Amino acid sequence: MEDRTQQEQASPEIEARIRESFDRQGLMRHLGAQITRIAPGRVHIALPSRPEVTQQHGYFHAGATSAIADSAGGYAAFTLLPENTEVLTVEYKINLLAPAVGDHIEAVGTVLKSGRTLTVCRLEVFGVQDGRRKLVANGQQTLIRVNRPEQ
Amino acid sequence: MEDRTQQEQASPEIEARIRESFDRQGLMRHLGAQITRIAPGRVHIALPSRPEVTQQHGYFHAGATSAIADSAGGYAAFTLLPENTEVLTVEYKINLLAPAVGDHIEAVGTVLKSGRTLTVCRLEVFGVQDGRRKLVANGQQTLIRVNRPEQ
Amino acid sequence: MEDRTQQEQASPEIEARIRESFDRQGLMRHLGAQITRIAPGRVHIALPSRPEVTQQHGYFHAGATSAIADSAGGYAAFTLLPENTEVLTVEYKINLLAPAVGDHIEAVGTVLKSGRTLTVCRLEVFGVQDGRRKLVANGQQTLIRVNRPEQ
Amino acid sequence: MEDRTQQEQASPEIEARIRESFDRQGLMRHLGAQITRIAPGRVHIALPSRPEVTQQHGYFHAGATSAIADSAGGYAAFTLLPENTEVLTVEYKINLLAPAVGDHIEAVGTVLKSGRTLTVCRLEVFGVQDGRRKLVANGQQTLIRVNRPEQ
Repeated sequence: MEDRTQQEQASPEIEARIRESFDRQGLMRHLGAQITRIAPGRVHIALPSRPEVTQQHGYFHAGATSAIADSAGGYAAFTLLPENTEVLTVEYKINLLAPAVGDHIEAVGTVLKSGRTLTVCRLEVFGVQDGRRKLVANGQQTLIRVNRPEQ
Repeated sequence: MEDRTQQEQASPEIEARIRESFDRQGLMRHLGAQITRIAPGRVHIALPSRPEVTQQHGYFHAGATSAIADSAGGYAAFTLLPENTEVLTVEYKINLLAPAVGDHIEAVGTVLKSGRTLTVCRLEVFGVQDGRRKLVANGQQTLIRVNRPEQ
Repeated sequence: MEDRTQQEQASPEIEARIRESFDRQGLMRHLGAQITRIAPGRVHIALPSRPEVTQQHGYFHAGATSAIADSAGGYAAFTLLPENTEVLTVEYKINLLAPAVGDHIEAVGTVLKSGRTLTVCRLEVFGVQDGRRKLVANGQQTLIRVNRPEQ
Repeated sequence: MEDRTQQEQASPEIEARIRESFDRQGLMRHLGAQITRIAPGRVHIALPSRPEVTQQHGYFHAGATSAIADSAGGYAAFTLLPENTEVLTVEYKINLLAPAVGDHIEAVGTVLKSGRTLTVCRLEVFGVQDGRRKLVANGQQTLIRVNRPEQ
């Protein structure tokens, strides 16, 4: 997947469906997260630093870090699915490699395997300070494809 | 651990240290989470339902579910540590077993193994509706003990 | 699941299907593993200590520990499925809590959630020495139900 | 880590220590696994196909797949440690992406983060048939550094 996603952009239809779904995620809005890139099999979500997303020492809370990682993986999976389907997270595992600090953090979800029923994504989260990026969390996620509920 | 935690309460000192730490977690306050029980090796955290913690279908977002699970496990580990130490999450894995719905969800972190350096916790999250509880997520977490930074 | 499994035995048909499948697992035979209990939603597999299953310090190798844990979870899932279906492991996560030592180790797979497509199991492995049991590994596993291939 | 490991070989001392440790792993010998590459932060282990490492359909058993993945990650971590230390697996998580088939499978352990106490590795396993490689499993592992026991 990785080579493809370096070059391509997702179709406008997919991008619109993802943005519309993202806007309905109350948590993402409440945290202040934003989608910063949508490519086939890869989605980036950024979260600016502010007191509302911290743990007790002022770093980004692991819950905020993994919330945007989970959403980035979910939408990455979504870019490769047929219309009228969507995905639910089955499970994920995340290692918090370093204190999550920076102007903002950025989660990158990348599809490793897109199957008929299940999708597996790699999750990475970077701390970004003055343009320098450092890997602060790394994980892996399993998602299941479901038929889209009627709107 | 489990038998002990059914009966005991944590000491007032530990309870005070946990509540003081929790109050400094900007994310927990921002989400509206509350500690509802502190026992040796077990901590409960509840999160009421409201639009700010949802995903696109109105269920609790997996990120919110796992944020309180992660904090519950962290504080459960904390109850068994000597003074002047604290814990950082090394990693966790969580399965989202069912849509997280209810008046509120409640995360229960329980210490499975408390070692000199590492602690391993079980994470459970229940959806609670009108007093009925349903397991909606189940996970496992590894934490590392660190010396407490000077205040 | 847990209460039920304390009391019940799996039906003779399910037990026969599991033993027949287990006997075809070359790895289990090669390691010397044996099924020691089959109940609805719970299966036990034991592995006697011998040099062929060790790591460099003479403990049971994490690979042997997790091999029997994975199989125990898979067959636990299998006990709750309709005929003509079987399960494949999607993923698992395991914490190695203590050196795996003893006369033998015993893996216990327990179904936490049995869904239409996916099953989630708890995996536990105990070191057993002179009848005393100690938890040496704890994990969680996701499995997918598939139609049974024609024999 | 990844760029460095493309070009370098581990020092002869480290290579000798790893091969000597590997030879003491009864399980690896019993399965028929072999170390095929040792670079700083990356180790490859191959396992030829034979009935003794299969599950009930003749594929490589998930237990065999993850046993060599776990060992590959452990030795990858080991390449970056000071003398007189070694590593124990704390936990790992692995997704089985596709049936593990081929002449042989090859596990690649790569260090993502080498800290003072903990190391985190990426685990990949490829099925290899007539020189063609396919990713069949992908995981993530946490290890802890310990002082080497006296020999």
